[in-house]
Amino acid sequence: MTAAEVDLLVRGTLVDVNTGTLRDTAVAVDDGEIVALGERPATREIETEFVAPGLIDAHMHVESSMVTLPRYGAAVVPKGVTSVIHDPHEIANVLGAAGVRSLLADAAHTPLKARITVPSSVPASHLQDGGATVDATEVADLLDEDRVVALGEVMNVPGVLAGDEAVHAKIDAARQRGLPVDGHAPRVTGSDLQEVARYLDNDHESIAIEEAREKVQAGMRVYLREGSASKNLADLVGLVDEVDSRRLSLCTDDRDVLDLVEAGGVDAVLAQAISHGVDPVEAVQLATINTAESYGLPVGRVEPGAPADLVLLSDLESWAVDHVVVDGVVDPTADAAEPPASAIATDTVRFDPVDAADLAIEHEGPGPVTVRVVDAIGGLQTGRMEASVPVSTVVAAAEASEGGFEDGSEDRSEDESAASTGVLAADTEADVLPMAVVERHGGDGGIGRGFVHRLGLDRGAVGSTVAHDAHNCIVAGVDHDSMARVANHLREIEGGVAVYDPAAEETHSLALPVAGLMSDRPLGAVRDDFEVVEAAARDVGLHHDGGLMELSFLALEVIPEYRLTNNGLVDVDRFDYVDVIT
Amino acid sequence: MTAAEVDLLVRGTLVDVNTGTLRDTAVAVDDGEIVALGERPATREIETEFVAPGLIDAHMHVESSMVTLPRYGAAVVPKGVTSVIHDPHEIANVLGAAGVRSLLADAAHTPLKARITVPSSVPASHLQDGGATVDATEVADLLDEDRVVALGEVMNVPGVLAGDEAVHAKIDAARQRGLPVDGHAPRVTGSDLQEVARYLDNDHESIAIEEAREKVQAGMRVYLREGSASKNLADLVGLVDEVDSRRLSLCTDDRDVLDLVEAGGVDAVLAQAISHGVDPVEAVQLATINTAESYGLPVGRVEPGAPADLVLLSDLESWAVDHVVVDGVVDPTADAAEPPASAIATDTVRFDPVDAADLAIEHEGPGPVTVRVVDAIGGLQTGRMEASVPVSTVVAAAEASEGGFEDGSEDRSEDESAASTGVLAADTEADVLPMAVVERHGGDGGIGRGFVHRLGLDRGAVGSTVAHDAHNCIVAGVDHDSMARVANHLREIEGGVAVYDPAAEETHSLALPVAGLMSDRPLGAVRDDFEVVEAAARDVGLHHDGGLMELSFLALEVIPEYRLTNNGLVDVDRFDYVDVIT
Repeated sequence: MTAAEVDLLVRGTLVDVNTGTLRDTAVAVDDGEIVALGERPATREIETEFVAPGLIDAHMHVESSMVTLPRYGAAVVPKGVTSVIHDPHEIANVLGAAGVRSLLADAAHTPLKARITVPSSVPASHLQDGGATVDATEVADLLDEDRVVALGEVMNVPGVLAGDEAVHAKIDAARQRGLPVDGHAPRVTGSDLQEVARYLDNDHESIAIEEAREKVQAGMRVYLREGSASKNLADLVGLVDEVDSRRLSLCTDDRDVLDLVEAGGVDAVLAQAISHGVDPVEAVQLATINTAESYGLPVGRVEPGAPADLVLLSDLESWAVDHVVVDGVVDPTADAAEPPASAIATDTVRFDPVDAADLAIEHEGPGPVTVRVVDAIGGLQTGRMEASVPVSTVVAAAEASEGGFEDGSEDRSEDESAASTGVLAADTEADVLPMAVVERHGGDGGIGRGFVHRLGLDRGAVGSTVAHDAHNCIVAGVDHDSMARVANHLREIEGGVAVYDPAAEETHSLALPVAGLMSDRPLGAVRDDFEVVEAAARDVGLHHDGGLMELSFLALEVIPEYRLTNNGLVDVDRFDYVDVIT
Repeated sequence: MTAAEVDLLVRGTLVDVNTGTLRDTAVAVDDGEIVALGERPATREIETEFVAPGLIDAHMHVESSMVTLPRYGAAVVPKGVTSVIHDPHEIANVLGAAGVRSLLADAAHTPLKARITVPSSVPASHLQDGGATVDATEVADLLDEDRVVALGEVMNVPGVLAGDEAVHAKIDAARQRGLPVDGHAPRVTGSDLQEVARYLDNDHESIAIEEAREKVQAGMRVYLREGSASKNLADLVGLVDEVDSRRLSLCTDDRDVLDLVEAGGVDAVLAQAISHGVDPVEAVQLATINTAESYGLPVGRVEPGAPADLVLLSDLESWAVDHVVVDGVVDPTADAAEPPASAIATDTVRFDPVDAADLAIEHEGPGPVTVRVVDAIGGLQTGRMEASVPVSTVVAAAEASEGGFEDGSEDRSEDESAASTGVLAADTEADVLPMAVVERHGGDGGIGRGFVHRLGLDRGAVGSTVAHDAHNCIVAGVDHDSMARVANHLREIEGGVAVYDPAAEETHSLALPVAGLMSDRPLGAVRDDFEVVEAAARDVGLHHDGGLMELSFLALEVIPEYRLTNNGLVDVDRFDYVDVIT
C-alpha cells in the first residue's frame, strides 16, 4: 500500500441523506473514517449498487430481545443497523446504576454502536420491590458516562405534570448537560401534552396518526415504532407526507428474539416504510440523519469526516444488504470472535425455595369465594374482573420440597363445603388461575398472590423472571404445586422463562441468567430454546396471542387496571393495593 | 392576574418550522417561555396575522456595521432578528481574547441574543502586525465561555490541508467540546474541498450554485449570504429547491451601516428569498430552525419549552413586522434605556504622529520609476499591476507637524530629471496614488508604503483604521501631506474613517473609537456621519463602487494578488514581501 492509498473505496449510488438525493459517486474510507466522496487509489475496492449510511434505531431495549448487546449486534449489524439508542431500563430495575455501567462495558464488545439513555423511571412505583432504584443523583452521574446521549424515556407523566421534584431533578440534570430528554407519553393530549412537551423532546408511544400529529406539532420529535408488542408503523406512516419528515424517526422499542431473527431490527421497519410508499431516500433519512440529529451523533450520514458506517446494497427498496462497514471494517461480525462473558451480573434470582402453600391464598371456610382477577385482555392493558373460585384443602404442605411436589395435586381433595383451612384454587372451566409474584432480588422474599383470567392453561404452570418493571418472579398455573416447581426451577437456572407440564412430568425453560432477563448465548440458540418453551406452553394450554411474554406485563403496576406485585394486588386507578377476596 | 393566567397570548397563523406548515393557533407565553400552543387565560392578548419564530443570522460580524452589539440589536430586533451567530474576528485582531471577553460583556446589554464563535484565524498571517494573536490555548479557553457556540470561521484553508498543528489544535478543541467548526472556504473544490470538509462543518463563501452544491454534497451546511460587500443570494437560491433545504441557512456576514439602516439584517435576506420564489415557510426555516440545529440552540422554533422569541407579522411574504417578542418581552427595544458604555477598549489607535516623509518612498535619481501597484479591482480581490510614477523632491519634511502640513504640496517641486533625493509621487492621470499602512496597535509603528490604482482621487486623501484583518491605519491620497493629515486625524479621534479635502481645507470623519472599528453611538447618528464622510470622499474624487470601505480590504494580505501591510507590499501568491520598485 502506498501512502496515497486509502483503505477502502466503495463505488455505487449514494443515498445522500444530507441533500435528500441519490447520486453516483465513490466513498473513500481510511482509518475508519470517510475521508472523501470521490475516486481515490485504494487498497480494496468494492462495487455495489447503493451505498447508504448505517442505520440507527432511535429507541430500543435490548432486554426485550433476551440477548446481550454483543449478541444483538451480531444479529442486526449484518442487516445494516450500525447504531442503536438503547435504554437499559430493565437492567436498571434489576441492578441499578451498576447494571447500567456493566451494560456500558458489554457495549464495547460489539461493532454495533450502542448509545445509551439513562433510565429515568426506576422504580416504576413504590408498590413493588425491584432490584434497585436509580435516584436523581445516580442519574446525574450516569449522564456523565461515555456513550450516554440522553435521559431515558420519562414514564412518570403525572410526575412531570405535577412538578414532582425527583422527576424534574433528572430532567434538569440532562438539560444542564445539553442532552435531550426522551419521552413516554402514550395517549397524552391537549393541555397535558402541551405541558409535558415543555420537558420531553421526543415520544415513541403514538398509536394513531392524530396522536403523532399532535405531538410533532407540539415540537416533539416523533418516533414511528414497529416492535413485537406494539406495531404502529402502518397507522403512523402517513405523517411522513403530511409534515416535514426531519422531525420523524423509526424505532423498534421492543423486538423479541423471534422477530429479531426472522425480520430484523430497525432495518425491517425501514423496508416496511418503503413498502408503505415512503420515498426510499426519505425512509433512509428517518433511520439515519434524523435520529443522529436528535441525539447529536456524528454517524447517520455519508460525508467526509464521518465515521465510516456504510451499508452496501444490491437493492435499495427491498433493503438487500451485500456488505456492512462499521468504522471502516467490512462485515465486522462475519468472523468475529466470541464476545467475552457479559459484565452484567448473573446471580440476580435470589429467593428461598418456595412450596405450593407459599404461593396460595389460605381461606377458612367453604367456597366458592369471590375474588378480584387480573384480566389479561392482551396488549399492555389488563382489565378488572371478579370471579368465584373454589377452596381446596391443603393436605400435604409438608411434602413440598425444593424440587416441588412429586405430584401435589393428587394429595388434595376439593371440598367446597369444608370448614377446615384451605386455599383458593383454580377454576379451569372459567379460565381463572392462581398467580403469584415472588420478590426475587434478595430482599424480603415477599410473595403476592392472586388470580389471572385468559391464560387458558389446562394443566401445569408457566413462569418468568422477566416481569416489567420490577422483574420479580411471576408464575401462574392450574395448581400451586406446578407453580412452585416452575418458580424453583427459575431460581435454579438464575432466571428465564419456564413451563412445567405435569402430564409429561417435564420442565422446559429458556435460561436468561444475565440479570434474569437475558442470555449470553448466540441469538439462534436463544431463539431455539424460546421456541421450545413456547411450544411447551401451548401444550399445557396457553393460548394467549402474546405467548409467554404476556406474563411479563401482568405485574406492571403502572398500567391499568389490575396488576399483581410482590406486595399484592394493585388497583392501578386507585394506585393502591386491594384485597384479592372481595 | 390570577394564578392560572399566562403573561401573554398571541393568536394568529403559526409558521411552524418543525412541521413545515402553517396553522391557526394561539401561543401562550409565561415567564419568558412558550408554555403551550393553544388557548390560555392571559394577562395580555395580541391578535396578529402570522406568528413566526425570531430569526437567527447564521453568520455575521457586528464590526462590519460599525456599531456595538447593543446598537446593532436596537436596529435589527424590531425587524424580527432575535439571535445572531457573531464572529468577533475584527475585535480579536485588535484586542485578542480580552476583546472577545469585552464583547461578551457588551452582549448582555441587548435583547438580541448574540451567540459567539471564537475567532480561529488571528492573525491572518505573519506578514502583518495586528493588535493581538489568539493562539490555540486562548481559543480553547474562549470555547468554554458562555454564549460561545462554535469555533469561528477557519480561514487558513492551506493550514487545514497541510495539517498545520496550530490550526488543527483549535479544531480539535472545538470537537472535544462537541462544538461545530465554522468554515471559510471560498472557491475550494475537488479533493481539497473533500479534505477540508472533514474538519469544517459549514461554509458561507459560495458565490455560484455549483460551488454551494458541491459543498452541501460534501456534508457541509451551506449559508446563503447576502451582505453589503458580497451579495450571493440570487445566485444560490436555486439550491433550496434542488436539495433538502434543512442543510441551508441565511446569513448577512457583513452588513454596513447604510444597508443595516435601510434594508435590515437577515430579515431582509429572508424577504429577498421569498421574492425569489422560496416558499415562505421554508424561507423561515432557513433563518430559524436550520441555523438553530447547526449550533444546537434552543431558539428558532415556536414550541412548548422554547424561549418566547416571536415575530408577529401583518404579512408573511413581505415580512411586515408588527411586534417582536424576546424572552416574553413585547418590543423590548421600543423604550429601552441607553446601553452602558461598551466594555471594549477605546484607546487602540496608538502610533506617533506621522509626517508626509514618513509615508513616502524615497528615491534617489530621476523619475519616472516603475512600481508595483495594488490594483483595486473591486470586491475582495485585487490585481497585480505595474505603473510609472514621477519622483517628487521633498523640500520641507521638517515642516511636518502633528497636525500635518499647512499645505505641504506647495512646498514641493516636481522634477523628474533631478538627481537629488525625492519621493515617489502620484500619477493622478493614471489614477496611481501613494498608499501607506501605519502599524497602529502600539507596536513598532512600522509603516508600509506603496501604490494603489482605481481609487480615482483628484485631491486630498482618505484613510481608515478599519483595515482587515490587522486593522492598521491605511491611508491613500494624491499627496503625502494630505495622507499624513488623515492619519494623524484618525489617531486623534481614536480610529474611524476620514477624508481630507485640501480644496475646502476640511477633514471629515466618522469616529469609530471602539477598538478603532466601531461606534458606541446610536445607529442613525453613525449612519449620518458615514454618509457625510462618504460624500466628502466622493467630493475628492473617490469613485469606487465600494466607497471608503474599499480601503478596508487593500491591506488584507491573504487574498490575491497584491496587498500593502505595515511591513510592506505583499505578493499573496508568493506569500512574501516584494519590492515596490521593480
